Amino acid sequence: MHPLLPNGFKLGILGSGQLARLLAMAAHRLGVETHVFTGNQQDPACLVNALNHLIDLKTLNLTSEQLELLNGLDAITFESEFVNTEMVSKLIKSKVYVAPSLKMMAQLQHRHFQKSTFLNYNLPTADFFEVTSFDDFNHVYSQFPKGFVLKKSFGGYDGYGTYMIANKKAFQKALAEFDPSYFEENHFIAEKLIPFKSELAISFACDQYGNIVDLPLVETKQSQYRCDWVIGPISHPKINSLKKKISSFLKKTKYVGVITFELFDTGKELLINECAPRVHNSAHYTLDALNFSQFDYHIQCLAGLKIQNYKMNSKSFCMTNLIGKGGSVSSAPLNLSGHLHWYGKSENRNGRKMGHVNYLGNSPRLLLKQALKERKLFKL
Amino acid sequence: MHPLLPNGFKLGILGSGQLARLLAMAAHRLGVETHVFTGNQQDPACLVNALNHLIDLKTLNLTSEQLELLNGLDAITFESEFVNTEMVSKLIKSKVYVAPSLKMMAQLQHRHFQKSTFLNYNLPTADFFEVTSFDDFNHVYSQFPKGFVLKKSFGGYDGYGTYMIANKKAFQKALAEFDPSYFEENHFIAEKLIPFKSELAISFACDQYGNIVDLPLVETKQSQYRCDWVIGPISHPKINSLKKKISSFLKKTKYVGVITFELFDTGKELLINECAPRVHNSAHYTLDALNFSQFDYHIQCLAGLKIQNYKMNSKSFCMTNLIGKGGSVSSAPLNLSGHLHWYGKSENRNGRKMGHVNYLGNSPRLLLKQALKERKLFKL
Repeated sequence: MHPLLPNGFKLGILGSGQLARLLAMAAHRLGVETHVFTGNQQDPACLVNALNHLIDLKTLNLTSEQLELLNGLDAITFESEFVNTEMVSKLIKSKVYVAPSLKMMAQLQHRHFQKSTFLNYNLPTADFFEVTSFDDFNHVYSQFPKGFVLKKSFGGYDGYGTYMIANKKAFQKALAEFDPSYFEENHFIAEKLIPFKSELAISFACDQYGNIVDLPLVETKQSQYRCDWVIGPISHPKINSLKKKISSFLKKTKYVGVITFELFDTGKELLINECAPRVHNSAHYTLDALNFSQFDYHIQCLAGLKIQNYKMNSKSFCMTNLIGKGGSVSSAPLNLSGHLHWYGKSENRNGRKMGHVNYLGNSPRLLLKQALKERKLFKL
Repeated sequence: MHPLLPNGFKLGILGSGQLARLLAMAAHRLGVETHVFTGNQQDPACLVNALNHLIDLKTLNLTSEQLELLNGLDAITFESEFVNTEMVSKLIKSKVYVAPSLKMMAQLQHRHFQKSTFLNYNLPTADFFEVTSFDDFNHVYSQFPKGFVLKKSFGGYDGYGTYMIANKKAFQKALAEFDPSYFEENHFIAEKLIPFKSELAISFACDQYGNIVDLPLVETKQSQYRCDWVIGPISHPKINSLKKKISSFLKKTKYVGVITFELFDTGKELLINECAPRVHNSAHYTLDALNFSQFDYHIQCLAGLKIQNYKMNSKSFCMTNLIGKGGSVSSAPLNLSGHLHWYGKSENRNGRKMGHVNYLGNSPRLLLKQALKERKLFKL
C-alpha cells in the first residue's frame, strides 16, 4: 500500500521535456509533491514545477543527497522509454514504487525485444528479423523483396535511426553507403514494409488494481516520421478484437501506467507498428477532449488511485502539432479557436515539437481543416 | 500592443495561494512565463511554478533586482482584491500592463466604494449606510429595524470582519460589546438584511477588445460565511436583465479580467450582495465543467488574447469545497468519482480551504448528493 493522496504522496519523474511537463501539471492538480530529475533546469517541465533536481540523465550519477531524496519518494516514473533500467535499478535502494516496471521498460524499449513480446502475446505485427551484422542486412532483402524498414533497436525516435528501404534501388544504395562497422555498433530490426491505408493509435491506462481503460482509437498523420496531426474518435471493425488481445497482454504482464500502441490499418487488418510504455503525442487530444487526460490517468495509476472510464467532452476532436522552424521569435494567433498547449522550450529548432493545439467539435475532418488553417497563423 | 503568446510573454501574479496556483497552471498551458510574488515559498502557487520571488506582500518592499524584474514584465495581475493600489502604482515605473486596473481595484476592494459603484451604474443591491463612528452604528438600527449586516469596509473575507445583527437583542448586545474606538480604527458599511431564497453567483470574463463572456449562473451554499458547495447551471427569470446591466458596467469601466458577482435571490428579485474583481471560488467548477476555465479566461484577458464563448462539458455540475479540520494527515478516497483539485497548503488549519472536487453529470441535485457523500470519505 502506498500513502494516499493528497499531500504526503511524493512522485519522481525522470526527464523534463513536454511529456514530463504535462505529467507534472496533472500531478499538481492532485496535490502530488512532484520531483523532476532533469539535465537542464530550463526544460519545459522545470518551468512548471518547484522541486527540480539537476542530474546527468545519461550516467544517472546522483549526489548522495539526490540519492537519499530519490529513495524517499513514493513512486517514480519515466518520460522516455530509453532509460537505462539497470542503472535505475541500482539507484533504488528502498521500496520506491516504479511504474511502468523496470522489467517492462527493458522489454519494450528495445525494438527486437518489443517485437518478440508482440509475438509471445499473440499481438499482430509486421514480420521482422533482427539485424546485428552486415551479413544479416544483406540477407534481409531476399526475405522482404517488396521493401522493408530498418530501425535501430535502441534509442530511435521521430525518424532518427530509421531507414526506409522501399525498393531494390534503395537497398543497393544502402548497401553501398552503410559501413559494416555500423552494424557492430548498432543493432537493428528489419520490418517488412506494410502498405497501409492509414495509421492509427490507441492508448491504455492500467491502474494497480487490474482496471484497464482503453482510450479512443485515433487516426494519426505522420510527416517525416513525426506526428503531424491526430483526429478521432475512429471506428474500425477489427479494433475490439485487438483491444482484447492488448488488454490480455497488459493484464498478464501487470502493466501499470499509460501505454500507447501505434497501428497500421492495411484495409484488411490492424497490425501493431510499435508501442511506447508511456504517455504519447497521439493522445494529447485527451487534455481537452476527455474529462481525464492521459496525464491524469498516468498519475492516478502511479499514485495508487482507482481509475474510471472517461467521458468525452465533445463528439470529435483534432490535435495538430506545432513543429518548430527554428525561428527566434514565435507567436500565436490572438483569436485561436482551439486550445493551445505550449511547451516553453528555450530553443526553437527545426523539426522540434514546440506545442500543440486541440480542437473540439462534431466532425473530425472539419476540425482538421480549421486546425490546419489556423496553424498557418503561427510563427514558429 | 503587448507581445503575443507563446514565449516572450511574461506575467506577474501578486499572491501565491490557491487562486494564484490555478492561474499559474492556466498560464503554463499557454506558455506564459509566470512570475509569482509570494510571502512564502511553500505557498500553493510556488509549488507549481519555477519563478517565485519572495517579497513582503504587506509592505511591497522589493529589492532593486525584483523591482527591475517586475518592470520587465508584460502584465501583472492580483490574486486578492486587497492589494495596496497606491503602493503598486509606485512600484510600476514602466509600461507594464495591469489588469484589473488599479483604479478598478481601489474602487471595488473597499465595500463602501463598491456599493457606491453599484448605485452609480444602476446595479441592484441592498440598501446600505456607511458606518464610520459609534454614532453612525447607533443610528443604523432605526433605519434597518428588521436587521442588518455590519461589514468591515476593507480586508474582510470568509466572514472575518462581518457581523450579523438580525434583531434588537443582537443590536443591543453589539452596542454593549463594541468599543467606540473600534469604529475609528475600522470603517464599516451596514447593509439591510435581505431575507433570501438562495444565494447565486455569476462570473464574467472581459478581454482587452471589449469582448465579454458571461459564465453560467450558479447556486452557492455558504456555511459559516464560507463557500461550502456550488451547483449549476441555474436559470432565473431576472438574470438576463441583470447580465445586461453588469455588462454595461464592465464596458463603461473597460474592465479587463474575470470578475464575480455574488447575488441574493429574494424570490422576487436578484440583488448583488458583493463583487470580487478576480477569479472566485464560486467558479471553480469551470476547471472541469467548461472547455475554458475561469483561470484560462483571466490569463487570456491578461495576455491580450481574444476570448470566445465557452462550451459546457456536461449538462450540470457540482463543486464541493474541502475545508480543513486541522488534521495532521490528510487523505482522499481511492476511487473518487469527481475531479480532485488539491491546493498543496503546507498547513491544515480548521476552516481553511484545502482543495475542491468537481462533479459532472445530468442532475445538479444528484451530483450534490454524491459529492457530499464522497466528501465524508476525505480525511481533512
